[in-house]
This record gives sequence, C-alpha cells and structure tokens, in this order.
Amino acid sequence: MFADIITIGDEILIGQIIDTNSAFIAKELNKIGISVYQITSVQDEREHILKALEEGKAHADIVIVTGGLGPTKDDITKHTFCEFFNDELVENKEVLRHVENLFAKYISGTPISDLNRKQAWVPSKARVLHNNNGTAPGMWFYEDGTTFVSLPGVPFEMKHLIKEVVIPELVNFYERPHIIHRTINTYGMGESAIAQKIEDWENNLPGCIKLAYLPSLGKVRLRLTAKGKDYQILSNAIEEASQKLYPLIGDIIHGTEDDEVIEEAIAKLLTNKGLTLATAESFTGGNIASQITAIPGASAYFKGSVVSYATEIKVKVLGVSQELVDTYSVVSEQVAMAMASGVKKLLDTDFAIATTGNAGPAKGDSDADVGTVYIAIASPTDVFALKFSMGSQRERIVQKSVNKAFELLQKEILKMWGGMLAER
Amino acid sequence: MFADIITIGDEILIGQIIDTNSAFIAKELNKIGISVYQITSVQDEREHILKALEEGKAHADIVIVTGGLGPTKDDITKHTFCEFFNDELVENKEVLRHVENLFAKYISGTPISDLNRKQAWVPSKARVLHNNNGTAPGMWFYEDGTTFVSLPGVPFEMKHLIKEVVIPELVNFYERPHIIHRTINTYGMGESAIAQKIEDWENNLPGCIKLAYLPSLGKVRLRLTAKGKDYQILSNAIEEASQKLYPLIGDIIHGTEDDEVIEEAIAKLLTNKGLTLATAESFTGGNIASQITAIPGASAYFKGSVVSYATEIKVKVLGVSQELVDTYSVVSEQVAMAMASGVKKLLDTDFAIATTGNAGPAKGDSDADVGTVYIAIASPTDVFALKFSMGSQRERIVQKSVNKAFELLQKEILKMWGGMLAER
Repeated sequence: MFADIITIGDEILIGQIIDTNSAFIAKELNKIGISVYQITSVQDEREHILKALEEGKAHADIVIVTGGLGPTKDDITKHTFCEFFNDELVENKEVLRHVENLFAKYISGTPISDLNRKQAWVPSKARVLHNNNGTAPGMWFYEDGTTFVSLPGVPFEMKHLIKEVVIPELVNFYERPHIIHRTINTYGMGESAIAQKIEDWENNLPGCIKLAYLPSLGKVRLRLTAKGKDYQILSNAIEEASQKLYPLIGDIIHGTEDDEVIEEAIAKLLTNKGLTLATAESFTGGNIASQITAIPGASAYFKGSVVSYATEIKVKVLGVSQELVDTYSVVSEQVAMAMASGVKKLLDTDFAIATTGNAGPAKGDSDADVGTVYIAIASPTDVFALKFSMGSQRERIVQKSVNKAFELLQKEILKMWGGMLAER
Repeated sequence: MFADIITIGDEILIGQIIDTNSAFIAKELNKIGISVYQITSVQDEREHILKALEEGKAHADIVIVTGGLGPTKDDITKHTFCEFFNDELVENKEVLRHVENLFAKYISGTPISDLNRKQAWVPSKARVLHNNNGTAPGMWFYEDGTTFVSLPGVPFEMKHLIKEVVIPELVNFYERPHIIHRTINTYGMGESAIAQKIEDWENNLPGCIKLAYLPSLGKVRLRLTAKGKDYQILSNAIEEASQKLYPLIGDIIHGTEDDEVIEEAIAKLLTNKGLTLATAESFTGGNIASQITAIPGASAYFKGSVVSYATEIKVKVLGVSQELVDTYSVVSEQVAMAMASGVKKLLDTDFAIATTGNAGPAKGDSDADVGTVYIAIASPTDVFALKFSMGSQRERIVQKSVNKAFELLQKEILKMWGGMLAER
C-alpha cells in the first residue's frame, strides 16, 4: 500500500521555507504500515498541480496534498481540485459558521471579511474535515479507487488534522501490511566504522528486515524495518536481530527508543533518581538549556542555566576567579571546570554542565582557535573538563558541542548510578 | 531556465529526517535566476531513481541530485547513474588520495577500510567535484543538453559544494533571466488582514512582479519577485511597487532585508548604538538567548542570560522578592518586571527581556492556565510587562513568545533612540 505526498507552494520551490510537513505525514503513515512512494513539491500553478495529482494517482492508493488553501490570490489548490474532479465550489454552512466563530473569539469587533468568507467555499464532491485550529478546512475525496486528502499547509493545523482525522480514517478504510521499526541510537563512532563492525551481522539479516544508517553530527541512528503479513514473525525477527546486534556495539548505544533524543534519555534517568541539573553556557548560548526545556516535565530536574556570554558574567555571577581567567584564558579546562562547579553551587544541583569555547567567526575574549571548546561536567563527587576541536562552522560547533555535552553527562550519571541503559 | 531537485533516501520517505537540502539548493539557484520546477524525494531504489532522473530530464535543464553517496549498502546512487548513462565505475586516484588524507588527518592509525576505498569509485563519464568536507565526491554529468549534478546528502558537505563549485559553474555555463526578490518582514497582523489592506495595491502590480505571503507564528513575510530580461526595468518596477507599499503597512514592517530575522535587525540597532542586552528566561528556557547568540558578533551587545527555570532561582539569583512571588504568583506581571529589572542590574546592561509563563502540558509553580505568559522589557528608564495568551502547544507557546519578545524589544529601542526602521 503506497501513499504519495504533494506539497504545494512557490515558497517551497524558491527555498524560503523548508518543507517539514512531508516528514511528519510520512512518519505517521509509516506507523500504520502505509509506505510513502514519493514526496513531490510543486508550484502554485494550475497545470503543475494537475500533473502532480495525475502522477500521484498513477503510483499510489492515497494522495495527501498540503498547502495552497489560504484565502489569498496565490492559493489556488481548491480551484484546481475542482478542475481535476470536474467539480465546482459551493458554500459550506458549517465551515462558514466555524470561521465566524473563530473571528468572534479571537478578534472580537472585527467584521469577517470577504477573503475569510472564501474559506467556506469547498468543492461539492469533497467531504469537509473540520479544522479546529484554523479557518481553512481539510477535504477528503475518493474517486476511482484513489483517496485524495487536501490539508492546510500551516504545520500546526495540518498536524492536528492528520493525527485526529486522517490517520484514524485510513486505518478504518484500508487493510495494511504490518510494519515494525526499531531505532538504535548511537554516538561516538562514524557510519563506516559501524558498518564495518557489523558487516557480518548485516549480511545475515533475514529478507524481511532492512537496515538504514541515519548519521547526524557525531551520532548515527541505525534503523531496522521489518515489513510483512504476520506480525508475530516480524516481531520475533526484529527482536532476534536486535539481540545479536547489541553486543557488537553495546558501548556506543545511548538508547533504543524510536525518535528518543539523548535529552529524553537523560530526563528519564534524572527524574527516576530524583537528581537535579544546571548548566553554565558560554558559546553554546542557551542551546543546552533550550534543548533540555523542550522536553515536557523538565522542571522536575532542571533548575536553570547561567548563559555567561561575556567573560565578566563568568566572574561576577558564576564566581570564576579573575586570576584563573588571566592565567589560563577564558577558553580553558580550568575555567570550564570552575564554571561547572560555580553553577552547581549557585543553583544547588547534583549535576552541572559547563561550556566555554570559540564558535567563531572571529576570535573572542581568548586566543583559542575557532572550533576549540571545553566541556565540563560536575557531579556530586567530581568535576572534569575535556577539550574538543569542533570544526570551523558556528552552527555546527554549537550543535556538536551540545550533543557531546549530553553524551558526557549521560555517561557520568550512568557511571555513578550504575546500571546499563537496557536496565532503565 | 528550470532546475529539478531530486533527494534520494528512504530516511526522507519514512519521515525520519526532514529534507532541508532542497530549500538550500532552491534558494541558491533562485539567486542566480534559475527557477526550481519541482522537488522530488525518492527511495533508495534503482527503478525509482531512474524514473526520477528521466522525469527531471523531461522538465528541466539542470537536475540536482543529493543523497545516496555513502559507502554503505543502502546507498546506490552511483550505480544507478552508471545504469542511466550506460557507464561503469572506475577508481579515481585523486579521490582515493583525498580519502586517505582525510583518514590520516582525523583518525591517524586507523587503516582505511574497503568501504572507504569505495568512495573513490565514480562513473567514468562523471567529472569529479572535489568534496573538501567529506569522503564522498560530487559528480557532474552533461548529456543531451541536460546537466546532472550528484552531491552527498550530508548538508554540510552539500552546501559547500553548491556554493563553491556548482553555482559558479552554472553561472559560467548558462545564460539566465534576471530575477529580483524583495522581502518585507512584518509582525502583529494576520495574512488576511494584510491582504485586505493592500488589495488595491496588489491588483495594480505590474505583470513582471509576483507577490507571495509567507506566514509563520505571528509574523508574515511578503515577497515580491520580479523576473525578466532587463535588469533595470525590473529593478525600477520593484522599487516603485515597494515605495507604494511601505506607507500602507509601515507600522507593521520590522525589516526589509531578504532573510533578515528580527534578531538581526535588533543586533544592528544595539551594535550601532553601543547598547547592551541581557535576558531572564523562565518558560522560554534559553531560547531567546540561543536565538540571539546564533548571530555572529552577538558578544558586542549580549552579555548573557539567567535561565531561571525553578522559582527559587528567580528569587536567589535574580533577586525577585519571595513576597512578590507569594502575593502575585510566579506567573504575573509583577514577577516578570522584577525579573527584567533584576537581570538588567545583575548583568549591568541597558536593556533586558524577561519571560515567565506556563508552556504546559501541566500547570507549573502557579495556577496560570497553559499558554498564559508575561513578557517584560526593561530599558534604561522604564520597565513594563504585557500579558499574552499563546495557545496550548508547548513548542508554539515558546516560539511565539520569543518572537513577541523581540518585537517588543525592537519597538522599545526604536522609541527611545528614535528613527524609523528605514533610517537605520
């Protein structure tokens, strides 16, 4: 069973926005055993959209379309669907009432405009999918054995419709093969090195299982996918393959939950043990804190951060001695350790992360080369800092350092509180 | 002149990674007047790649392909190009030497593996594009009037090749129409309301100019695009259209530089005036600081942030009085103002931003509803806080609040230091 995803919008083709919708939709479809054959981004142009719909119909059972449903002139998806299905727009009373209610609620006093009223006009053959979060309705068409779903391009509105309406309806409507993914998250080893280490294992994988390598900034995710008719056979096969794999690369696995980022693994560890964390960030500028607080429930273990971007703040707020800065420079092992100890004491926590380094492009308050960073971890009984060379690009230096900091912290927590990752 | 972009990789079609490469490539091509006709993401599968190459050839002069060049089994792009061009792989001595050098430099002692050696095998018809940043080379083919470029999927490697090699070569090789974009960045008004306000103006735009609305979380970018043969005519047309537009929506424009985010506009203001900034963040968890420090040169005006996630840190580090917290609750106008004043004093700056609120999903240290936030701005002479209701989704609550904080700060700086945005 295949689906095609079509995203409509000139803004995608001139690169002003990144298409994040397709990945979200693809992931949700995959979970229910529907494979995405192709993702196609096309212009806000009648002929181009028509051609994409034709092609979608040719190679998929389900075609999900996002974008081009706004009320402005450049949005022509609805008109094009009418042409495709030889249909016409009719005013939908329910949608009109919904649009009126939204305006009354959020912009009371403002009368509803003709542009907004247009949102209530939909092709007569469409079944309207109620959009709780916006004015543009979703639409569902079924013709000649193919399902077409048209959704607004605003991610927030699209996501809600996919999760609450589209996926449940597809589950009811189609019989699908089973599909099981298992993701193994690793750090500290490159793609080729891992491939070499597990070559024999990979060559002996059963036919129903595919392996993919997903590398990103110092981390590689391995994804096993089993697909077939019998759930039990697939489940056994993927379990057996995983159990054979773990001993081969046990030292570099940081988690095995699908989509789990290391911050989440750390969150569970700290929450379960009742431990607390603080950070003192220089060149990472709050990125560690913001990744930690992106996870709901962070207040259970995260007390806060001192982003000491200026050197004087390291001294004044974190209590790093000026002498230390003068002697070793602000980008040094000694200052990193003093920052970690300082913030741990100031915010009264069990663990602390500190970073100091030069993310470029120019040299800062020290002579350290661009890319030179120190990451320190303070634990209840110890503090240490390590030096890294993170390349030459600002964004990458920061993100690689954030990843490395989490890696070091997780290892330190596990070292002190014992237990393998598998036992969590 | 059209280009097609093809991204190869199962990881895109199952939604495990978001395709950010296409937007980058599209943007770079647009700058040199090459329009992207279509972006297509296909599986790591021989037939599917072949079909995409055929289609790309049918509707574009240039086909840019990324992905599938790794050394592991699931990467089959090179073999498929051989099939497409009726070609075969040959070992390229230069690439081999480059791979050997990279390994000698980064992992000295580790012998180069057979897998890595495979990177040096390329189709004989390909011109090799040297990849400074990785082991997989780029490849350039020209056949029957169509240019095919194959690049590694790792964004860092792809970007370097596009900027340093592919774009300059395309500029040399093809005659192209002129294309001029002008982006007008606005805040505080919705897409429909803007559309209504500028309806007459939009209807009277000359034929060579297209207008697009690009909405995102409380901000709408308007993009004017002029395309044609005579640069001067286009330039005059877009200038005239812009000058007529500005008075219609002057109060909501925060900048007119292409791609400029508001943080950059603020960075320029503060740097030019020699002013400094600090932030005290609760539920935004360091996101304001990390967006500020993402801009090179932030150390000229940004001293740091206290991410006071736990209430006790607001009291202990920022000096918010416990009485204020008890009387008004931690999510209140009074506490937001005290945080802003506190961090401004602690870090000794001219301006400060503070945030306190509830980003959910559960209620925190106060009874405030999820989505209720206070944003405070402290200036050299004043401090104030405003209350907002930012919806119900954690990520959106945070990002909308960050955007709003920058908007309030920019207005406050402009109010005190005078001048319209245009005068900067």
